[in-house]
Amino acid sequence: MKQLFHILVQNFTKLHPLQHVITRNVNRCKCKTPVYITSKKKIISIKHLVIKKRRKSPCIYEEFPKIRFIPMSKPHLLLLSSSKVHGYEFLEYAASDIKNFLNKSGVSTVLFVPYAAVDHDAYLKKVTPVFNKWGYQVEGIHNNNPIEAVKKAEAIFVGGGNTFLLLKTLYDKQVVNLIRERVLKGGIPYIGSSAGTNVAAPTIHNTNDMPIVYPQSFSALNLIPFNINPHYLDPDSTSKHKGETREERILQYHELPPEYPVHHVLGLREGCTLHVDGDVAILKGIANARLFLRGKPPQEIPLESNLSHLLTKNICVEQELQILQ
Amino acid sequence: MKQLFHILVQNFTKLHPLQHVITRNVNRCKCKTPVYITSKKKIISIKHLVIKKRRKSPCIYEEFPKIRFIPMSKPHLLLLSSSKVHGYEFLEYAASDIKNFLNKSGVSTVLFVPYAAVDHDAYLKKVTPVFNKWGYQVEGIHNNNPIEAVKKAEAIFVGGGNTFLLLKTLYDKQVVNLIRERVLKGGIPYIGSSAGTNVAAPTIHNTNDMPIVYPQSFSALNLIPFNINPHYLDPDSTSKHKGETREERILQYHELPPEYPVHHVLGLREGCTLHVDGDVAILKGIANARLFLRGKPPQEIPLESNLSHLLTKNICVEQELQILQ
Repeated sequence: MKQLFHILVQNFTKLHPLQHVITRNVNRCKCKTPVYITSKKKIISIKHLVIKKRRKSPCIYEEFPKIRFIPMSKPHLLLLSSSKVHGYEFLEYAASDIKNFLNKSGVSTVLFVPYAAVDHDAYLKKVTPVFNKWGYQVEGIHNNNPIEAVKKAEAIFVGGGNTFLLLKTLYDKQVVNLIRERVLKGGIPYIGSSAGTNVAAPTIHNTNDMPIVYPQSFSALNLIPFNINPHYLDPDSTSKHKGETREERILQYHELPPEYPVHHVLGLREGCTLHVDGDVAILKGIANARLFLRGKPPQEIPLESNLSHLLTKNICVEQELQILQ
Repeated sequence: MKQLFHILVQNFTKLHPLQHVITRNVNRCKCKTPVYITSKKKIISIKHLVIKKRRKSPCIYEEFPKIRFIPMSKPHLLLLSSSKVHGYEFLEYAASDIKNFLNKSGVSTVLFVPYAAVDHDAYLKKVTPVFNKWGYQVEGIHNNNPIEAVKKAEAIFVGGGNTFLLLKTLYDKQVVNLIRERVLKGGIPYIGSSAGTNVAAPTIHNTNDMPIVYPQSFSALNLIPFNINPHYLDPDSTSKHKGETREERILQYHELPPEYPVHHVLGLREGCTLHVDGDVAILKGIANARLFLRGKPPQEIPLESNLSHLLTKNICVEQELQILQ
């Protein structure tokens, strides 16, 4: 069985020697899986490191006693391309998916994160009756101490809007790392829509939004090891507009030189949803997706496709060491 | 006559007292114009500060002997929405505008900045024959020491591509401040297209591009005091796509709370060009523009409109102090 790990590293301060130590040791392990390295004060993520030999956990590695492998809970994610789909009311097209997803974990109250919008109260007012109708209570993260709210959350719903504003506010409120821990270690269900789906990826490099504010990093929650382009739109062959198409922009990203580590990109058309249950990822909803694996032609992904390989594949061209928060 | 100034400030290290000192003094001056403050090691920009009394220049202000007002040359800018327009070859729709613009300054060689693309050589190869045909030599900034190349440039053309990649590379090569100085103080002609037009604005907050790399700031060359949205696209009332329209995204930017200083935005449709000659700005080309003044309904701007008021108007809601480089 594949499993996600936290690697607890204590008393390392310099990043490069740390990367070297981890790389040298985890390369002896067996399974290929994303690995996250936790030190006392910060989460450092070495994305998509190849672990060739899985250690029992928690364990003390003989040569490096300060490294502990900590098993992570299976993540439960429901990532929606959008809240609005032509011909449907707000969130309506995903109603049964959302209800099934939350019921599986026995959720009664959802913590709503409206940070992608400017007016948090208005956004909460829009979302609450929809979830109430389905039998769930909704709390707004902005009405409480955000850190305490995330710590107590049964489930999290991060709504759409502007991805830059969302990520900046998550950093400003110091909940990036905490949401990640609660979802990956605590196993609480995470629903994202549009911008909320963007930030579930390792980075927001493939958002469509305008960069109206400057977040402290483009690194995001890193709940899955590939990027997402929500509201994916096919090129229109009849258009006279010469601005880049969505496909051209994503291919441009994949053409970056090697000093920029890039991720594969899943283009979710409106009405498309990605269900992640531990190490299983399935495409659902009412529209196909389009997958951009770096160096390969884009692929059409039909509904009900199993995309689990994207969760475990060694995706990065180079190992990348990043401070998330 | 309105005139741009550099204010040379020496031996100030703390930003807030500096802002206070400058504000208190320049408020006694007469003309309304953007003001830039230069210290020894960094350029600090107080955007759109109201100067009520213009000082002779260079002069030593009596009470604050370390502040000098230095006159700046009239900027010569030709800002294109795009290089490609439906029905035209690359840059063809703007051919006579570009030639007239360069001839006015007696330019024989243009420094081309291909940083918005990954393959600089290929981009140079595409641009060179077009300018050669019009009688100009072209040099690629990447084929020389970029700093020396900018210092010697007769004219600069910054091409389109990815705005984030362009701005990051400009910062990495340490030419943001230098290009700004050469254009605003040295008076050399600047041509921007798409991403190259985006970076001529105070910030890149209104680009349409994907944030495929992380620049050290969203502050850009600041050659004009308002932002630009190139490739501006009208909402399509027949579309079933629910992603935000360009108009919605710009209005979202203007709805940001007061802690985020925002700029007015000029939406340049493809084929639309903005000509800036000192304190005169005229809209030209083959398509109208759309102007978004914060707090007002969007306005349609016909060809040949005089937009000079945008160059001098006190645009920011709050004075903003930013380190550019």
